[in-house]
Amino acid sequence: MAAFSRLVRFLARDGRTYYGDAILPRGVSDISKAKQARIVKGDIFGEHNVTDQVADIRLLLAPLAPEDVKTVRCLGLNYEMHAKESKMPIPQYPVVFYKPATSLSGPTDPIPIHPLAQEGTGLDYECELVAVIGKRCADVPESKALDYVLGYAVGNDVSHRDWQIKRGGGQWSLGKGFDGWAPYGPGLVSSKLIKDPQNLRIVTRLNGKVMQESNTADMIFSVKKTIAFLSQGTTLLPGDLIFTGTPQGVGMGRNPQVWLKDGDVVEVELEEVGTCTNTVEFVHKPSSKL
Amino acid sequence: MAAFSRLVRFLARDGRTYYGDAILPRGVSDISKAKQARIVKGDIFGEHNVTDQVADIRLLLAPLAPEDVKTVRCLGLNYEMHAKESKMPIPQYPVVFYKPATSLSGPTDPIPIHPLAQEGTGLDYECELVAVIGKRCADVPESKALDYVLGYAVGNDVSHRDWQIKRGGGQWSLGKGFDGWAPYGPGLVSSKLIKDPQNLRIVTRLNGKVMQESNTADMIFSVKKTIAFLSQGTTLLPGDLIFTGTPQGVGMGRNPQVWLKDGDVVEVELEEVGTCTNTVEFVHKPSSKL
Repeated sequence: MAAFSRLVRFLARDGRTYYGDAILPRGVSDISKAKQARIVKGDIFGEHNVTDQVADIRLLLAPLAPEDVKTVRCLGLNYEMHAKESKMPIPQYPVVFYKPATSLSGPTDPIPIHPLAQEGTGLDYECELVAVIGKRCADVPESKALDYVLGYAVGNDVSHRDWQIKRGGGQWSLGKGFDGWAPYGPGLVSSKLIKDPQNLRIVTRLNGKVMQESNTADMIFSVKKTIAFLSQGTTLLPGDLIFTGTPQGVGMGRNPQVWLKDGDVVEVELEEVGTCTNTVEFVHKPSSKL
Repeated sequence: MAAFSRLVRFLARDGRTYYGDAILPRGVSDISKAKQARIVKGDIFGEHNVTDQVADIRLLLAPLAPEDVKTVRCLGLNYEMHAKESKMPIPQYPVVFYKPATSLSGPTDPIPIHPLAQEGTGLDYECELVAVIGKRCADVPESKALDYVLGYAVGNDVSHRDWQIKRGGGQWSLGKGFDGWAPYGPGLVSSKLIKDPQNLRIVTRLNGKVMQESNTADMIFSVKKTIAFLSQGTTLLPGDLIFTGTPQGVGMGRNPQVWLKDGDVVEVELEEVGTCTNTVEFVHKPSSKL
């Protein structure tokens, strides 16, 4: 069981990166409002403790260090109304695709749009509850599945519908896997605080306007059903992420359709967890990060 | 540039696991025939050297340690005749799906078939050339793409057609991602030895009978085109694997269709690289590896 309540990874005023347990003002549950954290020492998946050392948060980072993430599984069409707006049948089994770990980014990072993804139309947002696996598991019964969850975050499964659907040959990962297309955070709320992940309000705002608004109660496959299903014959590892699908209200499903533009500000929010606020940034030259 | 010619990871007679450079008898190119290797020390993606220390190979393992693999990308329908037998259009862009790193296994490991994948029909083999990325890269031009390849292996993209196609809601990863469903090896042949990966014979034998036989010259998207395409706006990391698609002759495409059964022996072979020989093993109880 995690020692922390709300795990954050952050850049501190000393220029170093720490894991911490976010300190929130009374009555506030949005981790993005945290200004300070108690430093967490040790292995967040194993032995660790929350120290008395308090540090100022200069910038919240993706909750897990990139090297701590292995596989990012995502569910498609996991809210009934979203399946309907997508003109797709209600799935009988979870619909599973992947994003690479390189698509992950932090709660305030810009979402870089590569020239390739500026072509055509269809740049879209998807607010999602993200469950983080804390312990290695396989063939977990539904009744015990939540014991393997380290915590919950909110994420944005950024998608380019042309690449996802038409040009991807029917396989969705291509149009969802660009660098920085999975901002998540603002921290991880321990599963000891969120005992029932199926009763949380989830929202997307685009430039301040509510575009998606639902509740995780409307998921077709609950988090525990999803983990039990995915772990059949498949080992889930500490640091595996599961993006659990998005509700109705995506840009593709609206009339008229709404596509993200350069400079748009997208907020995804999950009750008890907080908000990620990311700006869409059209990149005019390919990256030269090498 | 890698110092090794044919990288193997193996269990030695002393009970320990090493990286080595396989020693092959004159005139033999199949790494699975290697009995000894020169031990490789250092970081296989960075500074390393082939020592004079020779060790006996007791068992060849998956060429990369599991912790060294991040993302396994796979192409679908990348041989024209296979797209035709699958009754699918020739893709205009690479069709991309993922397998989790937990699906990887070694060149002689059994392929465990979980009870879930014993249901329905459609257990199938797919021989594939596997390219291993050696250096971090993004937006690589086609002309330089092969500079980022550490080496080549042969792999089997084991698939359950019912889960892949019907029950997966159209997303292929689910029916291809079970533990141990991506045996690969028997080693990695350095890209300094294989300068042109588009002229290699590739074969599957099922219980000794040839089922797939083609040449990587028939790929629709060559390895260099694939890397250039996939790296657009997407950072590829050292240890990322790319399964480059399978030629015609899969069980699904045959008349009558042929599905793998408990005890079947599947060999996948790639010229200049060697053979993986894996036995299908129906598992009657869920694993209890925990």
